[in-house]
Amino acid sequence: MPAVRNERSRQAILDASIALIDELGYDKLSIEAIARRAGVGKQTIYRWWSSVGAVVLEAATQSLDPVVAFPDTGDFFADMRSQLVGIVELITTTGFGAAYRGVMAAGQSDPGLLEAVYTEVIEQNETAFQARASIARERGEIRADADVATLRDILYGVIEYRLLHGMSLEAAYIDALLAVAFDGAR
Amino acid sequence: MPAVRNERSRQAILDASIALIDELGYDKLSIEAIARRAGVGKQTIYRWWSSVGAVVLEAATQSLDPVVAFPDTGDFFADMRSQLVGIVELITTTGFGAAYRGVMAAGQSDPGLLEAVYTEVIEQNETAFQARASIARERGEIRADADVATLRDILYGVIEYRLLHGMSLEAAYIDALLAVAFDGAR
Repeated sequence: MPAVRNERSRQAILDASIALIDELGYDKLSIEAIARRAGVGKQTIYRWWSSVGAVVLEAATQSLDPVVAFPDTGDFFADMRSQLVGIVELITTTGFGAAYRGVMAAGQSDPGLLEAVYTEVIEQNETAFQARASIARERGEIRADADVATLRDILYGVIEYRLLHGMSLEAAYIDALLAVAFDGAR
Repeated sequence: MPAVRNERSRQAILDASIALIDELGYDKLSIEAIARRAGVGKQTIYRWWSSVGAVVLEAATQSLDPVVAFPDTGDFFADMRSQLVGIVELITTTGFGAAYRGVMAAGQSDPGLLEAVYTEVIEQNETAFQARASIARERGEIRADADVATLRDILYGVIEYRLLHGMSLEAAYIDALLAVAFDGAR
């Protein structure tokens, strides 16, 4: 059998991972349990992924990608609000939050997995945010000397911080975060 | 023997925890290994702490507490810079960073430990920051309507975010973070 992924099996495996995290928690997850739920053999999973963490990262990334698209309605602040509220909804209404928390936990003792989180999630977001922020800068929506990299860390980093601490996340919090990040405390 | 802690044993246990994290990593830590290194019996540790995570959290908190004291030299911005640079130094030059990462990783599947991180680290910091920021507000160093809770999340949350991702942390980064948090991006 060629190493090309069978798309239906791949999706069944990713769906099974997210469903099992929701039901059992990340630390109870195993390749065996995912294989059983997805109706595939363990070898099918191991052919495409090296670990539970790698499967879950791909499942998390797949659900995150459409939400972190960078629309441009002409209003950077409003577009960022829409996107960040969408991320908060993904966290609070799907298995994404538990999946991301599990991957970050596993990543603390698995440098390869943490590096994959950087490559698959953070780096992509950095590139797209930089592009969207450049347009905002040209339009004068942010200062000419605005530190876009740090602004990005603040917007996404604080959401992640609150997620990993199990703190509340809601649209009103996004408004508060955007207010400080865009207008400052002084 | 009374349940009162023997101070010398307690300190030996905390020191052994941090030293072992530095050498082996959090995930290789065990009560057995800590007891052996500290020269105490396992029961001595179990009498005072319920898990490896609880020992490590206390060790981390002990090294963090003096660094997150809130001095008041009359300049809120400068005082925050000193304190945050001190935290970054603690992270980059001692076992604190590895200890905190380990506790946060374990906390993702141990709600009691995550709750203890909140009580022992976050909540204390919230109270002290609120008090220091109130003085700054009275002096007009931050706006009358400044959102102090969100400002705090940004300053400490982004450092934690970068720590957990293994991203670089240095004094220049603190300057960038303070600039956006205090003056905003627009």
